[in-house]
Amino acid sequence: MTNSSPFRYELLHADAQTSARLGRLHTPRGTVELPTFMPVGTLGTVKGVDIHRVRETGAQIILANTYHLALRPGEETVAALGDLHAFTGWQGPILTDSGGFQVFSLADRIKLSEEGVEFRSHIDGSKIQLSPERSIAIQEALGADFIMAFDHVVALPNEASVVEEATWRSVRWAERCQKAAQRSDQMLLAIVQGGLDPGLRRRCAQELVAMDFQGYAVGGLSVGEPPAEMYAALDVVVPELPVDRPRYLMGVGRPQDLIEGVARGIDMFDCVMPTRNGRNALVFTDRGPVRLRNASHERDRQPIEADCPCPACQHSRGYIRHLFQAGEMLGPILASIHNLAYYQRLMTRAREAIAADSFAPFREERMRGWNEAT
Amino acid sequence: MTNSSPFRYELLHADAQTSARLGRLHTPRGTVELPTFMPVGTLGTVKGVDIHRVRETGAQIILANTYHLALRPGEETVAALGDLHAFTGWQGPILTDSGGFQVFSLADRIKLSEEGVEFRSHIDGSKIQLSPERSIAIQEALGADFIMAFDHVVALPNEASVVEEATWRSVRWAERCQKAAQRSDQMLLAIVQGGLDPGLRRRCAQELVAMDFQGYAVGGLSVGEPPAEMYAALDVVVPELPVDRPRYLMGVGRPQDLIEGVARGIDMFDCVMPTRNGRNALVFTDRGPVRLRNASHERDRQPIEADCPCPACQHSRGYIRHLFQAGEMLGPILASIHNLAYYQRLMTRAREAIAADSFAPFREERMRGWNEAT
Repeated sequence: MTNSSPFRYELLHADAQTSARLGRLHTPRGTVELPTFMPVGTLGTVKGVDIHRVRETGAQIILANTYHLALRPGEETVAALGDLHAFTGWQGPILTDSGGFQVFSLADRIKLSEEGVEFRSHIDGSKIQLSPERSIAIQEALGADFIMAFDHVVALPNEASVVEEATWRSVRWAERCQKAAQRSDQMLLAIVQGGLDPGLRRRCAQELVAMDFQGYAVGGLSVGEPPAEMYAALDVVVPELPVDRPRYLMGVGRPQDLIEGVARGIDMFDCVMPTRNGRNALVFTDRGPVRLRNASHERDRQPIEADCPCPACQHSRGYIRHLFQAGEMLGPILASIHNLAYYQRLMTRAREAIAADSFAPFREERMRGWNEAT
Repeated sequence: MTNSSPFRYELLHADAQTSARLGRLHTPRGTVELPTFMPVGTLGTVKGVDIHRVRETGAQIILANTYHLALRPGEETVAALGDLHAFTGWQGPILTDSGGFQVFSLADRIKLSEEGVEFRSHIDGSKIQLSPERSIAIQEALGADFIMAFDHVVALPNEASVVEEATWRSVRWAERCQKAAQRSDQMLLAIVQGGLDPGLRRRCAQELVAMDFQGYAVGGLSVGEPPAEMYAALDVVVPELPVDRPRYLMGVGRPQDLIEGVARGIDMFDCVMPTRNGRNALVFTDRGPVRLRNASHERDRQPIEADCPCPACQHSRGYIRHLFQAGEMLGPILASIHNLAYYQRLMTRAREAIAADSFAPFREERMRGWNEAT
C-alpha cells in the first residue's frame, strides 16, 4: 500500500503454532479487527436483520453485491440516495463484490469476450453488460470502502484448459480494474483464481502480487469441492501473498472452514450461510448445528445457546420452533440474528486465541465440539 | 373490581370538552397508561417485529389470540414452555382474545349450539370444540393478564333476529365464563355485542354491567360497517359502562378510529392494521398514509416521518421502497415497526392532550393532517 492510502493493514501478532495472524485493518470509516467475518447484505440488506441488530452481533464490516444492486435498484439510484452507507444505514466499512461470481452463476445467456460479458438479468431478462471498467464504475458509484476486481469464475470441477483460460483472463481483467479505479478512498483487492490446480493457483498469485494490489482475495473456492481441496489451495496460495496486506477468502463458509482459513493466514471471510441457514431453521452452536424444526424441540425450554446474549437466545428453542412451524417471519429473523452473532463470537474467540498463542488448542476444541452429536 | 383484585383502574383526568379520559390500569405486571393501543401478537409474535423492538415503540401491553394459539402450538405446549410471558419474552401485561371472533370468521364447518361451537381448524381441518368454559380454560393455561369472555360474533349487516339471538347468547356465555374463571391474577372482561341496533347494544351493556365484570369491551364492530355507525354504537354503549372500569374497543382500527374512540371514552384498542398495512408497504404519518411502493419514492431521501425516532425512519423512503421492490424481508419489518411506533406516539399525544384539556383541538388538528393529500 502506498503512503497516500487511507487504508493500512497492521499485523499485531502471528500465532506461534499456526499461520493464524491477528491484525487490524485501518480504514477511513474505522478499524476492522482481523480475522473478521463480513455478513452478506446482497441487495443492501442483511436478509431479515435490521442494521442496528447487525451491528449488535459484533460485525465490523459488511458486504454488498454489485451484480444484484446494479439490477435493483441500480447504482444510480443508490448514488442518488447518497451511497451504500447512506442507503443501508451502515456507517462502518463496506465491501462490494465485483459481480463476477454472480454473472457466471446467476445470469442467463452469457456472452463472454475478452472485453467483458453480456448477459440477461435473472430478474427481468433485460440485457446487461459488465466488464472490468464497468464493474469498477458501478463500485465507485456504490461507494463501498473495499472494491473487488472483476473476475471470470468457472464451475469446479472443470477441464484444465477452461480453468486456465478463465484464470489468466481474470488476471488481465484485474490489471484493467487497477487502471480503471479512480477513487483514492476505496481499496481495490485482486482475486486469485486457478481452480484446484496448485501450480496455476501459485502462478496466478505471483502475477497478481507483482501488480501490487492493496489486498488479495482467494476466489473460486467453496463452490462444491471437498473442504480438504479448498484447504490445500490455501496452503499453496497464502504463502505467495504479501504479509503486509489483507487476505480475504471469498464466500467461505462453515464455522470449521473459517477456523481452517484463519489457521492458514486468512484475515477476512464472507458467507450467506448464517442468514440462509437461519432462514431454514438451522442454527449454529459450539456443539454443532441444531435443526430447530425437529420435534424434540417442541417443549424445549433451553435457548439455542445458554451463554449467548443475542435476542434469539432470550427465547426458548420451543418458541422459535413454533415460529417456524407457524410460518412466522420472526423465526427466520431470530435464527439469522443468532447465527450472525455466533459467527462474530467465533471470530472474537479466534482473535483472543491468536493473541494468547493458543489458536491450535482453540481450533482442536472447537472441532471436537462441532463433531459432537447434539 | 373487588378489593382483593390485583387489578385497579385509576381515573386521572376527564377531558373538559369530550368524553376522553386519562387513566391508569394497575396490573400485577406493571401499569398501563390509558388510553392505550395493544399491538396484536396473534400467534405469540407481533408479526415481523422482535419483542424488544415492540417494547421500543412504546407499547405497554400486547394481545394474543386464543383461537390461533390453541391450534398452534396448543395451549399445553405454551404452558409447558412457561406461559405466554415466557413464551413471547414479553414481561408486561398481555391480553388474550377468547377465540369467539376467530371461530366465526376463520373456522370451517361451524356447528353452533347453546353449549358452544364445534368446527374444523382452518390449518389442518382437525375437529375442535370451543365453549365458554373451554375458552376460559385455554386462556388460563396461556396465562395472560387480561382474558375475554367467549362470544358469538355475527357478520354485519345481518337480520335483526340473527343479531339479537347472538347477542343474548353472548350474554349467557359471558355469565358461564364468569363462573368458569378461576385465576385471581387474571382480569376477565365482558364483551358488549348488539350489532348496529342501539336498543340492543344498550340492553346488552346493561345486562353485562349488572353482572359486575372487572372490565368491558365493545365487540362486533369494525367489521365492514361505515365508521359513523361504529361511532354511533359507541355513543350508545359507553355511557352505560361503569366509570371505574376499563373500556376496550376490540379490533379497531385506523388512526382516526382510535381518536374517535378516545373522544367517546374508550381506554384500550387493538388492531392488526399497523403490522398488516406495514407488510403491504403502507405506512402511517400525520399527513395521512404513504404508499412506499409508489415510484415517486424511488429516489426519495426523506424518511417516512422526519421527527420519528423509530429504526425505519433512520432510512430514506427510497431505501425502504427498494426493499419492498426487491422482496426483502426488511421492508415489511421496518414498515411494521414504523406503524407500531406511529400508533404508540398517537396514543401518547392523545394522553398529553387529555391531560391538558386540549383533546378536542388535538383531534381536529390530526383529522386535518390525515385528510391532507400527501
